[in-house]
Amino acid sequence: MRILVINPNTTASMTQTIRKAAIGVAGRDTEIEAVTSLMGPVSIEGYYDEALAVPGLLERLADGESRGAEAAIIACFDDTGLDAARALANIPVIGICEAALTAVSFIAQRFTIVTTLERSRIPIEALVRRYGMEGRAKVRAADIPVLSLEDPASGAIDRLKQEIDSAINEDRAEAIVLGCAGMADLARTLQGEYGLPVVDGVSAAVKQAEMLVTLGLRTAKRGAYATPGAKTYKGALAQFAPGG
Amino acid sequence: MRILVINPNTTASMTQTIRKAAIGVAGRDTEIEAVTSLMGPVSIEGYYDEALAVPGLLERLADGESRGAEAAIIACFDDTGLDAARALANIPVIGICEAALTAVSFIAQRFTIVTTLERSRIPIEALVRRYGMEGRAKVRAADIPVLSLEDPASGAIDRLKQEIDSAINEDRAEAIVLGCAGMADLARTLQGEYGLPVVDGVSAAVKQAEMLVTLGLRTAKRGAYATPGAKTYKGALAQFAPGG
Amino acid sequence: MRILVINPNTTASMTQTIRKAAIGVAGRDTEIEAVTSLMGPVSIEGYYDEALAVPGLLERLADGESRGAEAAIIACFDDTGLDAARALANIPVIGICEAALTAVSFIAQRFTIVTTLERSRIPIEALVRRYGMEGRAKVRAADIPVLSLEDPASGAIDRLKQEIDSAINEDRAEAIVLGCAGMADLARTLQGEYGLPVVDGVSAAVKQAEMLVTLGLRTAKRGAYATPGAKTYKGALAQFAPGG
Amino acid sequence: MRILVINPNTTASMTQTIRKAAIGVAGRDTEIEAVTSLMGPVSIEGYYDEALAVPGLLERLADGESRGAEAAIIACFDDTGLDAARALANIPVIGICEAALTAVSFIAQRFTIVTTLERSRIPIEALVRRYGMEGRAKVRAADIPVLSLEDPASGAIDRLKQEIDSAINEDRAEAIVLGCAGMADLARTLQGEYGLPVVDGVSAAVKQAEMLVTLGLRTAKRGAYATPGAKTYKGALAQFAPGG
Amino acid sequence: MRILVINPNTTASMTQTIRKAAIGVAGRDTEIEAVTSLMGPVSIEGYYDEALAVPGLLERLADGESRGAEAAIIACFDDTGLDAARALANIPVIGICEAALTAVSFIAQRFTIVTTLERSRIPIEALVRRYGMEGRAKVRAADIPVLSLEDPASGAIDRLKQEIDSAINEDRAEAIVLGCAGMADLARTLQGEYGLPVVDGVSAAVKQAEMLVTLGLRTAKRGAYATPGAKTYKGALAQFAPGG
Amino acid sequence: MRILVINPNTTASMTQTIRKAAIGVAGRDTEIEAVTSLMGPVSIEGYYDEALAVPGLLERLADGESRGAEAAIIACFDDTGLDAARALANIPVIGICEAALTAVSFIAQRFTIVTTLERSRIPIEALVRRYGMEGRAKVRAADIPVLSLEDPASGAIDRLKQEIDSAINEDRAEAIVLGCAGMADLARTLQGEYGLPVVDGVSAAVKQAEMLVTLGLRTAKRGAYATPGAKTYKGALAQFAPGG
Repeated sequence: MRILVINPNTTASMTQTIRKAAIGVAGRDTEIEAVTSLMGPVSIEGYYDEALAVPGLLERLADGESRGAEAAIIACFDDTGLDAARALANIPVIGICEAALTAVSFIAQRFTIVTTLERSRIPIEALVRRYGMEGRAKVRAADIPVLSLEDPASGAIDRLKQEIDSAINEDRAEAIVLGCAGMADLARTLQGEYGLPVVDGVSAAVKQAEMLVTLGLRTAKRGAYATPGAKTYKGALAQFAPGG
Repeated sequence: MRILVINPNTTASMTQTIRKAAIGVAGRDTEIEAVTSLMGPVSIEGYYDEALAVPGLLERLADGESRGAEAAIIACFDDTGLDAARALANIPVIGICEAALTAVSFIAQRFTIVTTLERSRIPIEALVRRYGMEGRAKVRAADIPVLSLEDPASGAIDRLKQEIDSAINEDRAEAIVLGCAGMADLARTLQGEYGLPVVDGVSAAVKQAEMLVTLGLRTAKRGAYATPGAKTYKGALAQFAPGG
Repeated sequence: MRILVINPNTTASMTQTIRKAAIGVAGRDTEIEAVTSLMGPVSIEGYYDEALAVPGLLERLADGESRGAEAAIIACFDDTGLDAARALANIPVIGICEAALTAVSFIAQRFTIVTTLERSRIPIEALVRRYGMEGRAKVRAADIPVLSLEDPASGAIDRLKQEIDSAINEDRAEAIVLGCAGMADLARTLQGEYGLPVVDGVSAAVKQAEMLVTLGLRTAKRGAYATPGAKTYKGALAQFAPGG
Repeated sequence: MRILVINPNTTASMTQTIRKAAIGVAGRDTEIEAVTSLMGPVSIEGYYDEALAVPGLLERLADGESRGAEAAIIACFDDTGLDAARALANIPVIGICEAALTAVSFIAQRFTIVTTLERSRIPIEALVRRYGMEGRAKVRAADIPVLSLEDPASGAIDRLKQEIDSAINEDRAEAIVLGCAGMADLARTLQGEYGLPVVDGVSAAVKQAEMLVTLGLRTAKRGAYATPGAKTYKGALAQFAPGG
Repeated sequence: MRILVINPNTTASMTQTIRKAAIGVAGRDTEIEAVTSLMGPVSIEGYYDEALAVPGLLERLADGESRGAEAAIIACFDDTGLDAARALANIPVIGICEAALTAVSFIAQRFTIVTTLERSRIPIEALVRRYGMEGRAKVRAADIPVLSLEDPASGAIDRLKQEIDSAINEDRAEAIVLGCAGMADLARTLQGEYGLPVVDGVSAAVKQAEMLVTLGLRTAKRGAYATPGAKTYKGALAQFAPGG
Repeated sequence: MRILVINPNTTASMTQTIRKAAIGVAGRDTEIEAVTSLMGPVSIEGYYDEALAVPGLLERLADGESRGAEAAIIACFDDTGLDAARALANIPVIGICEAALTAVSFIAQRFTIVTTLERSRIPIEALVRRYGMEGRAKVRAADIPVLSLEDPASGAIDRLKQEIDSAINEDRAEAIVLGCAGMADLARTLQGEYGLPVVDGVSAAVKQAEMLVTLGLRTAKRGAYATPGAKTYKGALAQFAPGG
């Protein structure tokens, strides 16, 4: 089974963190192909970056599917371009936010998501509503840029821990969800430190993708995710025209 | 990895259907232990049966956990006793309704659940709300007793197909969820016949259980699922007293 | 008119508190029969106790109905086994949480429920949603075991009052709901002390039960509360088989 | 105990129907005082009539309270002026729509309200949401003017029955709620005819009012229902100035 | 284009504030007619005042429409009598709360409404839900009587600013909505002072009214806003009988 | 006042329809600048087209703002890229779906949106929820490609009218919303034909934009719409890097 894991930002070192997390949980028969987007922002922080990360993501998805991937994961916690990806691909596509929320919903009633920047808080709250977790989840921002997670000297981990402390003491969180793909390597350590479940979306998504492939479930192509019909696309994005 | 699959009704032949479905999707390293409840109703049809199936379920869960199971599945579509089970066990526990709804939510926006009897429709609608799928799911009852699914001469499969037809034509369902553990063997065939995704909760739950074990996630014991404190239980249920 | 009040835990002294509260508000023509469950936990604290209190409750309900009760009350604030009880009985059945929420909804827009243990908080929040009071009610736990309410030396009343203080000052509660049958004797006193409405579910349920009997209203037997069909129950719970 | 039942329209014959229904269920110690509004519309059909029925209602409420009523009922199914009435009075005030919805919620999960005119349907749907019954209730209009209920030759009862038939067959209603005070005399007969619960709000409100008085519960005067402060009112409504 | 702006309280000096705000934003072709209610409370503070302000409002509305107004605005933040006004008039009618919420929803995701008295907070929260802004808006009361806004020595503006400070710091408000028509003159100044959007409903409503007139949109007269049928009104309100 | 109206698809003839509708309602002091996206799909039908229309839209928005536009409108009914546009621009940005829903909410309680293709129905239902109109709006698809609206021989208008007929008769719609920018020229005619309000989002958005400019309201830059920080963008989209 081949699972495509797409980092929709253009920072290859973050793809490396994601790849490791994915491989760490993949089944013996699963091959993880982790790829970095070739165009767009080096990190996705808020609505603007997110929108401009979508073409690069879709390009990688089409390429990966054509080379035989059986499921795809979008490895950014705002589930970048998820609906467009599902319309495009025939293979199932999973976002790491929805994967993380699904995983935590099996083991806790109330939980807190800790993400990076304040400007990502409201988009994630919208995802919480979309995935039906309103009333169960709180979202906190640690006020750390995404790429600072890669720099041990940045103090980012300390800020993250301060928010986890607040989640436990003020929100009465029963579990923590890490709200950024760049935190994928921290879940096990933090779970050990805090003694409560800490969920990473990348690893959760890998197992959900394995589920869909094993069960033979693919995106329903009737309704909102129907395959785009053939159509002209103009200008710099002409290559994306479907049905060509 | 050992996964306990509990049939909370007392009909061993239905456990056999469930076991097959579970084994069919389990990973190479997963051992499926499917057990039948030793006390309570032979089928669970509505609130009354459900309530009286819980002690038998909890007994089997405690037993299975003590013998080394790493995760447990409750194989009845009303997610019988799920909250009590999570409070009791240290291992994670998954209901097949929540597992099925989770699986279908990755591949479709609107779907229909087809269950057995009208009296089960409203309890399942309550689960749909609990799991945050309100507005995405419709529930239909095929008006067939649970155990009729085991009798080819009963006409149950025909009734089930009539409701799937209605789901596709009237509800504009993008995917179908089978709303009874006794239908676990039908998903693949129906998916082939209808050409749209058909989801069975037993197989979905097996993969979700594997996810939780692989990720090291267990039920949060802080809050509603805190382990029951030691306490006297009187009368016929004295054996269930926690902390004994 | 005979009203059956069932204490679903097995502590007779708590039944005595409940009985007194019920008799104190019953109409001149109402006979209160307060009974204690014969099997299960001595107090109901969280999901596990609740599930295992249901068989004892149902046994008492069937017995009381057969001896002529015209309505029944489940005197535990988690509305233990309410749906199963409604399916079983032909007489109407009322939970004290729903009765209390109904009563307070006539006199206040925002209110706080004060219950015993933290592990009961989330189940009560689920009841608040079920009864359509989301956005109007807050739930607080005083961190007191249920049975400590019977022990003047336990300090339980002081803890309870601290939470009422917080409800008034922090939640801007307009009224207080006592979230445990074991508090039934405190409502009048606390109402006098605090100068705002304090609602007890046991007494509210008695008057609601009188309403249903007077109006000739019984549980609708069409849909989710249809009477269970005849069916075999196995093992220790065989006696509960319906239609025998 | 004295309960004031206010017909907020100005048709005395309808008050007579309401009075009979109220007396029919009142406790032995309850005195029913049914009064007719002295100013405003002869029937309340939609938002405009409703708004202009409020002053007459408030006048009657103030008068009744000053003469010793211990609780008040607003006997129109749109719960005319309920919030203003609660702010004005010290005694508890109940609307018949909320009383009916409360009563039916104890005995059925899904029900249909049958009211008079289409223009009343949407205001009642708003009340259904206000009282937290969204998803449980449907509202149907029989297309009959309110006062036609008093004229046996009008065919109004036949139209009403047609909608009840549709409610049973199309909505799968488990119970029926009569959506107009002018139908208060029909509940028992229709219940007998249809064999399922039929709820009238006037009689339900009488029993709820008895509950509040017996339990010593009055409208919370902290928050939205705080007593209006002294203030000048100009023109034709000067008499309504509070605190005079 | 003539737009009628009705101050539903009976204080002419407040109408002057409202008129100025309206004229300040009206288009070159728009004539603003600001009128004061002739009967009812001098200020609207809570449910009771609101209900008794409705007849005076409706009288002014009918009069203004008969003299050629093409749209009407109800200039009180509780959207006094909005539904009755829409049923009565053929011209479109706008409330300043809905106008303000609409305006702010185009420019912010989370905002705080600052109103006058605590007793107005809950009615405004109900409007927030009615207009679909639940989860986006917080409501704060500055604890200032409405008419104190006209008295520079009252300290009302200082109290208002304290709540704006809290909204910014505690609620993380992105924008402020002024929750009283009497604050209409403060928006621009406060916006300059605080450096974030401050929305006044009176001016927003003027532009929305211009929109409806320009687009040729009038209240739908099919359904809840159907014109009231001819009917007798008794007593002091006989003049309001429709269809006369 | 200069308002930028962006057609986010790349079909200039549709921009012409949009321009006409915008100019038809603009105030005397308003200059409408209608522009066509330079890259992406020739029509936006579903999630995939929508995502790939965003870069072209953002490019046009940045350009228009730099040349002095004071407000911008996104003239596609799925409110293409609205959040990204608000983060990018300092001027206010309005989507035509939100503008249309706002306009209709002032004049009707229940309405139906008629759009083009089935695959657009579910995205529009998500917008209905986002804008708080759930329970008030139905969405129908006429099964017509977007560009067929420009071809009189396509039969598209007839299909559209069939759905309006169904909306009136089956949905009991009080008003109709046209769910595609390409229908902007039809509103007045259809309103005349059907005798109920028909709302076009382009013209509504022009008046809302005028409102925001006149009131001095700009997108709140605190929170989710904070201006994107300087950052590298790689590959084909490097030109979009903010803060350059």
